[in-house]
Amino acid sequence: MNNIIEQSLEFHKKTSGKIGIEVLNPVNESQDLNLTYTPGMAYVSLEIQNDKSKTYDYTLKSRSVAIVSNGSATLGFGNTGPEAAIPVMEGKSVIFKTFSGLDAFPLCIEEENSDAIIKFCEQIQPTFGAILLEDIKAPECFYIENELNKKLNIPVFHDDQHGTAVVVLAGLINACKVINKDIKSLKIVINGAGAAGISTANQLHSFGIQHIILVDSKGVINSSRTDLNEFKLKALEFTNPNDVSGHLKDVLKDADCFIGLSVADILEETDIQEMNQDPIVFALANPNPEIKPELALKAGAKIVATGRADYPNQINNILVFPGVLKGAIENRVSTITRKMLVQASVNLANIVKNPTSDKIIPHALDDGVCESIQSAIKS
Amino acid sequence: MNNIIEQSLEFHKKTSGKIGIEVLNPVNESQDLNLTYTPGMAYVSLEIQNDKSKTYDYTLKSRSVAIVSNGSATLGFGNTGPEAAIPVMEGKSVIFKTFSGLDAFPLCIEEENSDAIIKFCEQIQPTFGAILLEDIKAPECFYIENELNKKLNIPVFHDDQHGTAVVVLAGLINACKVINKDIKSLKIVINGAGAAGISTANQLHSFGIQHIILVDSKGVINSSRTDLNEFKLKALEFTNPNDVSGHLKDVLKDADCFIGLSVADILEETDIQEMNQDPIVFALANPNPEIKPELALKAGAKIVATGRADYPNQINNILVFPGVLKGAIENRVSTITRKMLVQASVNLANIVKNPTSDKIIPHALDDGVCESIQSAIKS
Repeated sequence: MNNIIEQSLEFHKKTSGKIGIEVLNPVNESQDLNLTYTPGMAYVSLEIQNDKSKTYDYTLKSRSVAIVSNGSATLGFGNTGPEAAIPVMEGKSVIFKTFSGLDAFPLCIEEENSDAIIKFCEQIQPTFGAILLEDIKAPECFYIENELNKKLNIPVFHDDQHGTAVVVLAGLINACKVINKDIKSLKIVINGAGAAGISTANQLHSFGIQHIILVDSKGVINSSRTDLNEFKLKALEFTNPNDVSGHLKDVLKDADCFIGLSVADILEETDIQEMNQDPIVFALANPNPEIKPELALKAGAKIVATGRADYPNQINNILVFPGVLKGAIENRVSTITRKMLVQASVNLANIVKNPTSDKIIPHALDDGVCESIQSAIKS
Repeated sequence: MNNIIEQSLEFHKKTSGKIGIEVLNPVNESQDLNLTYTPGMAYVSLEIQNDKSKTYDYTLKSRSVAIVSNGSATLGFGNTGPEAAIPVMEGKSVIFKTFSGLDAFPLCIEEENSDAIIKFCEQIQPTFGAILLEDIKAPECFYIENELNKKLNIPVFHDDQHGTAVVVLAGLINACKVINKDIKSLKIVINGAGAAGISTANQLHSFGIQHIILVDSKGVINSSRTDLNEFKLKALEFTNPNDVSGHLKDVLKDADCFIGLSVADILEETDIQEMNQDPIVFALANPNPEIKPELALKAGAKIVATGRADYPNQINNILVFPGVLKGAIENRVSTITRKMLVQASVNLANIVKNPTSDKIIPHALDDGVCESIQSAIKS
């Protein structure tokens, strides 16, 4: 483990970060300057002044994504501030370029106020074809995304919410094929009612799954709770159909599927044993899952997925955000809808031709991943 | 001329803009993802969380420049709005990468309020090693730059003010060598008291030139004027030593040097003839100069410079901003001072080993330009 730490630090230090600017038409002689700089750029400027829609023809806007973060929920580290978020956002930029060809620039900003973050995104709108929100903490992230969807003409995608949700549903579709259960009849328990938890509940419900129970650090989300924020209250409208109360382990009994999107190491073998037949365990806490996959399997889990690359079935957002924003920009989608995201899950699941317990999700480097998602994001 | 317009539009359209993102270490296999993305980036994030100064070691901050513009004074086109400024800022990014290796990203923003632009720059400070302000109209640009110099820890450079000023002084140093005049004894008339005019007056005065007269659209800037903004009033403290009044053509009589930084086609041959012996004419209005160079020479001008590439002695900001910001970032300069900029002019002038009337300024593609400027920007 020390080895990967040292390797990573060295890897980031040798090039001082991971991305730079590429000049698409190199400048070698005076004539190149005349076209790329003055007077050439002036004619293009005039064209755009006369017709703003030409920004997409003549500038990077047709390929550019702003990755906006304030580092208030960086990875699992909490509120790190913007600087510590830069390596993450440079990583996202690498993923964008590699898998979708989009040119995404990290904007890690010093700003904790939600309305000021919204204002910031309004200001940068002219330059970018889309905005990816990253590592902004809940519940602020819900408000910010909602407001931006109302205010901006360019698409906005909050990866921490919907990236995970899209992959989880895709994985669940294939998991049900493997164990031969009707996905819409599953009883699903989601631990974690933050960005990813609430969006995943939404995604599964929108696909037609009726029996979903959300659990947060205080227990099951139900109507007797007086401490629920507006976003958890809204989620309660379509979750917990029998309005049960209790703790995670109470509702996990006879559940078909556990989806962990919060803290590590909270499940034991006995919890898995008390689930319904052929249980599905998505233990997605990172880097340490809610239960070690080998223990879950030993206790009877039929399908196990984690967030980690060193186990099968990695639930990884990088499968999703490059294709979502590529499709949104190319198809001039101004608002990415839940219906599009559900279709993205279906398309992503279909990439795996013959799902097995060890392969319910495509690998990031598999062919067709970006295209499958991209083709779902259209009006 | 139609040809260059069509060529430029085609040039910008074929690649949809001029810059993209370069991935410094390409992702080909899973191990690459482990280092560039997860888990690798998490270790780097932790390092920076523990010590923010390491942002310079592990991220793009050590090379990144934000090119911030609201398009309120795009080229000579006035307030075009941010979209029409994008081709210009992409062009600046190409120049940065080509001449200094810096990675500069255009941020053309929808924002007319000066305080909101300042706030925007404060927000993006964590991600960038420096900020280049571009095409923001006067007098707002003076206030914005002053406030940012007080508020930010990273260097800020307003190209439209100081880029021109640095090249003009460099050109003037060499022009005086050619005509064998003492530069500090020159009487200089500057037409235009906007961003470039006021900074150029400052730059020349800081070099030791005493007799500078600023002229704006209402006439000579002098103490009887009641319509002067605070920046023109401040410039009056060190210009117009005899407090004369009148119009451009009045004060141009017996001047040694004319510097035009405003409107085109305002001088005639007779104006040049009435100047002092061996007059220097910097007719920098773009694309049409204040007087055609051939006419100025015919009327007796000894040295003529313009902003155009198709005449000798092009006064071009691209000689300056790549080196200024390269030096500022590398030498961890938090505020770029006038003293540094004067030294930059001296260094730039020295690049031309044997100045002649046709070569007082180096060409952008000459060796050593960026380095000469860069070495002047240090504490």
